[in-house]
Parts: sequence; structure tokens; C-alpha cells
Amino acid sequence: MNVLVLGSGQLARMMALATKPLNIELRAYDVASQQAINPLANDQIFGDLATGIAHADVITAEFEHIEHDVLALCEASGKLRPSSQSIKIGGDRRLEKQLLAQCSVNNAQHVIVEDEQSFNAAIESLSLPIILKSALAGYDGKGQWRLKSLDQASQIWLEVAEFFAGSTSDVPQGLVAEQMVPFDREVSLVGMRSANGEIKVYPLTENHHTDGVLSVSLALDAAQQLQQKATEVFTRITNSLGYVGTLAIEFFQVGDQLLVNEIAPRVHNSGHWTQQGADTCQFENHIRAVCGLPLGGTQLLRPTAMINILGEDTVANDILAIEGVSVHWYGKTKRAGRKMGHINVSGNTSEQLQQRLVAVANLLPESAFSDIKSYIRDH
Amino acid sequence: MNVLVLGSGQLARMMALATKPLNIELRAYDVASQQAINPLANDQIFGDLATGIAHADVITAEFEHIEHDVLALCEASGKLRPSSQSIKIGGDRRLEKQLLAQCSVNNAQHVIVEDEQSFNAAIESLSLPIILKSALAGYDGKGQWRLKSLDQASQIWLEVAEFFAGSTSDVPQGLVAEQMVPFDREVSLVGMRSANGEIKVYPLTENHHTDGVLSVSLALDAAQQLQQKATEVFTRITNSLGYVGTLAIEFFQVGDQLLVNEIAPRVHNSGHWTQQGADTCQFENHIRAVCGLPLGGTQLLRPTAMINILGEDTVANDILAIEGVSVHWYGKTKRAGRKMGHINVSGNTSEQLQQRLVAVANLLPESAFSDIKSYIRDH
Repeated sequence: MNVLVLGSGQLARMMALATKPLNIELRAYDVASQQAINPLANDQIFGDLATGIAHADVITAEFEHIEHDVLALCEASGKLRPSSQSIKIGGDRRLEKQLLAQCSVNNAQHVIVEDEQSFNAAIESLSLPIILKSALAGYDGKGQWRLKSLDQASQIWLEVAEFFAGSTSDVPQGLVAEQMVPFDREVSLVGMRSANGEIKVYPLTENHHTDGVLSVSLALDAAQQLQQKATEVFTRITNSLGYVGTLAIEFFQVGDQLLVNEIAPRVHNSGHWTQQGADTCQFENHIRAVCGLPLGGTQLLRPTAMINILGEDTVANDILAIEGVSVHWYGKTKRAGRKMGHINVSGNTSEQLQQRLVAVANLLPESAFSDIKSYIRDH
Repeated sequence: MNVLVLGSGQLARMMALATKPLNIELRAYDVASQQAINPLANDQIFGDLATGIAHADVITAEFEHIEHDVLALCEASGKLRPSSQSIKIGGDRRLEKQLLAQCSVNNAQHVIVEDEQSFNAAIESLSLPIILKSALAGYDGKGQWRLKSLDQASQIWLEVAEFFAGSTSDVPQGLVAEQMVPFDREVSLVGMRSANGEIKVYPLTENHHTDGVLSVSLALDAAQQLQQKATEVFTRITNSLGYVGTLAIEFFQVGDQLLVNEIAPRVHNSGHWTQQGADTCQFENHIRAVCGLPLGGTQLLRPTAMINILGEDTVANDILAIEGVSVHWYGKTKRAGRKMGHINVSGNTSEQLQQRLVAVANLLPESAFSDIKSYIRDH
């Protein structure tokens, strides 16, 4: 089976690693060079998009910010899973909010902003503080503003207007202005839906962010009621889309309520722990789903967490000596704040996991990991 | 870190898959074409042995039947781990027997056969039945004869003489004639030794063979005393060799005694279950050891077994729907009896593992898997 993945980052690489044992040959379409490449080989280039589409049995995506003409070409081949509609919803917060409304799924109060008039209208109709998020692109904390007091409004509007003007997208840029939710914590659900409607989800994950970027995820074992609520939302959304593949939903948890924050129509950073903590990881299960293969087990095997390595290209080798630790590098060039790799940590009990997390944290340098270190120690 | 593996079969491929996340770039030296290749890419060829040696930081091997001039070149670079001596011992049963004697390790009574005279001497000094195994090459049941009654001797000698004459090795061929051990079962121990002398071993595995080829391995949890004995043998052998990397020891178990059957100076088929059943699999731990990285956890996470796929290039997709099942294909061309892939099966309890093994066996075709199916059902 030949699979073409739109996007050639770490997610495509981890899909390739996870499914090579199924004799699935995975090529990744690099949007910068507009060439299909082998994500497991340096400098093995297979040709342009048309060649990649022709060679593939199945086409899927590792990210949602894909030019619409690329999606259209892939969809026309009849091989794209999930659909371009599903991918676009993940790439445009306005479509996402429409979908949530259609599915009657709880989310934050919000107003769509497309110009100064709607910007001001949003400020009037929502209570402060307000978070403004770009409708297109800009995940991981980019293209976001926080309006805490009214005197910030004019300065923020200047920045937003400049941001709009700088957009190179073929779709008009916009914002979703959301009333900030005083949440207790952020959790996410990663799961898969098959073409035949089979759904499997992993346990909810508690997520910690550093400077707006996910930095720690902890799989949650004992939250049955919450897990059911999240699964219900997952089922409603993926059935509504006729979704095929892995999809992630980020939630704000407020008491025992879940408000959807964001949908990612793909494998997700908060599901990386499944490489060590579940029978079948999200990467293999995504490819299984889009290739029409049965889904593998998603239960939590033992307490497991993930630590992102942001902006660093080495960690102390001693970390590898801690039992239950797996280090996953992405082979990327170092850049400040960049997702360079992650560390999965498992324990036989929650206490053992916590001990091992602290042991790992103690070996991470204060400079780059201070927030992660204090989060782990305080947990 | 760049690693060159001598040999380009499934073991090199699985080493590459296991250590790509450590940003280790692994090239495999294909002895047939005499070229280094990317085991994770079709048709990516890097050049000849000299180029491969120059490019590598570390050189290791996935098999022991390597021409001595190749080993000598690699050793001269100062990058080869384990040493050529260790690799040669795995490739010549005569050297292996010498090592076992040096280490005072129990093994079957045996006589070295190099000509008709020593062949007859072996028959005289050993009790029937005798198993005759070629000293060089010929693992997986090839180059072996069983002498059950004296009237077979002349016919077997004719075959052996022809076998000797057909040898293309740069070392004289020979046989080890062993008194057959009336063993209760065959078990094996896979473990690692680091350059600094650190040793970690996985739990003993019970092995079942079909037509002389390993077909099922079951990790054993509750054999503390046996585990200690096997670990003691592992420690003595690897310390004696100053061994670096993964090494496997096959034993005959007779009551509570262990007799060494064979040593493999490499990752081993009976350790494939570690991909799902241990923190760090034998492939990653081998590369960690030869690269001077700390060894990862080797404890049994939960009951796990492996089924080899011999001579078949597909199995029913429904097998993937059974929880706790991982299928590993090697991307090889189908040939009768060839190791094409394996299936790892885990359960939360021994009973659940057994249920899942039976469920897998029920989906395997009778034609190719009849022996495996009856072994699993009777277990």
C-alpha cells in the first residue's frame, strides 16, 4: 500500500516509522519544495504533486493549513482521507465554529472579526478578557492577542490590521474573538474514525502549555464520566463530517463541563504518548483508518506522559538510563522554541511515573525547560 | 550518529526503525551487492564498503556469517562493535564450543568432525541419537543431520562429504557432532552488554520451532531461578569476550538445568517480542550499546509472545482488529519457509494473552501455520 501524506514534518515521519512494519510505503509531500520525499531518507525525492498523487493508493495530511488548490487536486483523485472539507475545518476557526454549532457542541462565546467594525462589535458583546485568534493558520500561539482592558483595543487593532494585510492565503484572513474561559485545565481527546463508522478513542490527556505551545501531556486514567462526555463530542463531530482518520479535540475543562477549544483533523502532539502508552499509537491508527484497515487498541497500558523538547537539539544521555523513558527526535534543525522532539515517560503506577518524570526533569537544563520543570515538580 | 550495519535484512531494518527516533542514521551493508543501502528506503544506495566504513561512527552486524576480510577491514577502522572475534564465534560452532569450555558453561557432549575419521570417532564416543551441525553458516535447520541408528552413518557421511566439498567459505568447513539432549523445552536469553560492562537482560523466552526454524516465542515471567542461571551464563560469556551489543543464548532446559545450545552475537528472532513487551526493544538497546548510550529497560511489561510468519506475504486483516496485536512485515519477496514477518501479541494477563493467541491462530491459514496453530492451542 502506498500512502502520500500532505506535509513532511515530524508527524509524517512518525506515521512512516509506525507503518513501515505494515509494509506501507509512505511518501511525504513537502509544501515548500513542492516535491514528494521519503520522510525516512535524507535526499530521496520522488517528484511533484501530480506524480505523488498518481503513485498513491491513499492520500492523507499531517496538517490543516494546506492550499486549497492542492486539496482540490488530491480530492479529485478520489484518494483523499479525511475529506478536504474536514481538513479545511481544522484550518479555519470560522468553519470550526460553524461545525460546533451544527453539532450543538459546547464552546466559548465568540464573535467572528473580519474588519474594524466587527472587531469593535466583538469587544462590545463579549466580556473581558477576550482572546483573539487568527481564523487561518497560526497555531501554537502565533497570531493571537489577549485583550484584558479596553485601552489595549486600538493598539491590538493596529497589529491585527497589519496581520490581515500580510496574509498570503487564498482565503480572506479573519479572527475569532472568544471570551476567555476561566478553565480549570486543558484536556484533549485523540481518536480515530474508520470509513465504516468504527470509532476508537484514547484516554483524555491533560495538557500543559509553555508560551502558548504544548509542553507536557499526561494521559488520564480515572476520568470515566469526563471520558464519556469527550467521546460523545468526538462521535458527534466525526460522524457529522463522515470523518476518516485520527482527529484531536482540545477542551477547556470547567468543573465537570467540557468546552471545545479547537479541533485538529490529524494526529496531534497531545497523542504522542500513545507511542509507548497504548497498544497501537495514533500514527499507526491514523494510517490504518485511512487505508481501510481495522483500528488497533487504544486503552492506556500504564501511566504515561509526554514532555516536548522545544528549541533544543540535545538532552543529557543519562535520561535514556531512566527506565520507562523513550526519546523521540524529529531530525530537525535547531531554532528557538521549535518542536525538536519529545520524551515519553511511563511507569507501572502513577507514583512511579511521577518519580520518573521528576528524574527526567532534574536532568533537563533550567534555561530551556524551567516552566516544564516547575510544572512537573508541582504536579 | 551514523551507524553501519553489516547485513541488510529485517534485523538491520528493525534496528533502523527503532533508532531513527534517536536521530541515529543507520546504513546497511548488503553483502550480495557489496553496497551500503538505506534499509528504510527502496533504491537508496550509498556506495561501497570503504565509503560505508568512512562515513560511520560505529559499525555493527546483524548476522555472524560475514567474510573474514570484511570483518578485518571494519575492525581496522576501530569502529566495530562487537569485536570480530565475537562475531566469528557466532559463525563457527567450533569456536563457540571452545568459548563455552573456557567459560565452564554447560552444553551438550560433542566431538568436532573434520573428516571421515573424526566422523567415525564421533559416532563411537557419543551415544545415539547424534545431531550433526555444520560448523559454519547453516542456521535455521540447514546443514544439519540426525543420526538415529548406525546403519544411517555411511549415507550421512556421503552427504556431509558433499556438503564439505561444496563449501565456498574462506575457512574450512566442519561439523560439531552432539549427543542429542532429551530436553524439556528450548529457552533463550537475549541481553546487552555495554562497553563499560553494564549488563541488562530480558526475561527468558520459551521457543517453539517448526521444521527447524523458530516459529513461536513466549516471554517467561515467573522463572526467577532459571532466569538467574541464564543471566549468570550470559554474564560469564559476554564478560569473557568483552562483548558490546545485544547477544542471544539458546538453551536446552532439562529439569532445572540449562545447557547452552547456541550463541548468536546479535539481535535475535526470539527477542522480537521486546518491540511490544519491554520498555526498550532489543534493536534499540543493541544500537544504544554499540553507540555508547545507556541501556533502556528490559523488564517484561505484560505477557507477550511472538509468532513468526514463514513463507507467507499476507495474513487476514482481521488479525489487526484483535487488541494487543502488532504485525511486523519485513518487506521481503515471498519464498517457501522464508521469514517474512512476525506478529507480536500481548495481554494484560497470561489468560488474556492465551485467548488472543488463539484468536490470532484461528485467523491463520491451516496450510502454512498448522504446526504453529496446534502448538498455540495445546499450550
